[in-house]
Amino acid sequence: MTVSDPQPSAPAEGLRARRRRQTRAELHAATVRLAREHGFAQVTVEMISKEVGVSPRTFFNYFPSKEAALFALFGTVPPALADRFAEGEGSGTDAVLRDLGDILADHLQEAAPEPQELEDSLRIAEGVPSVLATFLAQCEAVERDLAGLIARRTGTPPDGEAAELLAGVAMATVRSGIKRWHQSGAHADEGEGPAERVRESFDSLRTLLGPAAVQ
Amino acid sequence: MTVSDPQPSAPAEGLRARRRRQTRAELHAATVRLAREHGFAQVTVEMISKEVGVSPRTFFNYFPSKEAALFALFGTVPPALADRFAEGEGSGTDAVLRDLGDILADHLQEAAPEPQELEDSLRIAEGVPSVLATFLAQCEAVERDLAGLIARRTGTPPDGEAAELLAGVAMATVRSGIKRWHQSGAHADEGEGPAERVRESFDSLRTLLGPAAVQ
Repeated sequence: MTVSDPQPSAPAEGLRARRRRQTRAELHAATVRLAREHGFAQVTVEMISKEVGVSPRTFFNYFPSKEAALFALFGTVPPALADRFAEGEGSGTDAVLRDLGDILADHLQEAAPEPQELEDSLRIAEGVPSVLATFLAQCEAVERDLAGLIARRTGTPPDGEAAELLAGVAMATVRSGIKRWHQSGAHADEGEGPAERVRESFDSLRTLLGPAAVQ
Repeated sequence: MTVSDPQPSAPAEGLRARRRRQTRAELHAATVRLAREHGFAQVTVEMISKEVGVSPRTFFNYFPSKEAALFALFGTVPPALADRFAEGEGSGTDAVLRDLGDILADHLQEAAPEPQELEDSLRIAEGVPSVLATFLAQCEAVERDLAGLIARRTGTPPDGEAAELLAGVAMATVRSGIKRWHQSGAHADEGEGPAERVRESFDSLRTLLGPAAVQ
């Protein structure tokens, strides 16, 4: 497999960004495919690079390790989604969690790899501690981004405790949603990604924290 | 340094458990000390084992890696604390979070290493991704334990969504408390461990989720 050319009709602007996203997706897909064929322990950065037709040096421009390439689940929250959240109405906990759930589900919908690839990555993470650790570290990086967004929305300091706690609560909810999607078999039955399940987890969280439950 | 003999007056029962805890603590302390002297990257399992006077094979009975030995922060929640929580009153979200905060702070107070050692481990984690990942994976293991305890307390299924979400919320709060303790310099000024700061984070969380804030 080689890096495909972008669409001929694509505007010059953003072409490089699109090509980068595509190479990233191909490296991720090749990592999952090779792990399926050979077992993750046998896969090397050289094998992945060769499969995609790039040099190992190029590989390291995209991912710090084969573990990171296996989980290409999250990138930075795209600016459009970040703005939508930061400019949303209300600075109460429930409004913030509701809108966080919204943009995170949308983010997953757009950024997540093929459901079957994600499913395979999660199965490997269950058996390989370094892969699980990489997944958790990626969640931690997203959590730091979210704390900044929450602070912007609520007008609190970027390193404030409230923003940090809510970001942690939101990522715990994302992880729970992905886990439950993984366990449900929805990917196999209907080819569905985790976004809808994450949305449901935020609904469950808000019910759990709602006035009726907090007593 | 060698493994010290237990107190002569100690009852025979529990002697092996105490000795194990002590060896574990010594391996942890030696890892932190060697990392200070040589830089964590240079430290090997052989060096740590030699320092404590045990074989590398014995090391691996206690920790799977030098990263894990650096963070000996959490073990399993002790049965006495687990029972106290599971038998506590109330199954509402606020009561559960209040009592979780209590037993987790007590657990940290008893199980946490010397404040200066923890402080050094956290500083290393900031610069070494594999150490941060190990810390997060240890938090994840505690989170799974907590979900079981919450289910027991609330009479819900052990793999239920509510128990999983609340366990995730609690561990996000613990991580935030430890981080803020690390940033505050309280360890240097007063030799204080993170337990009290974790207690404060749970108070902040409950205020944030309380009826006044959820609107």
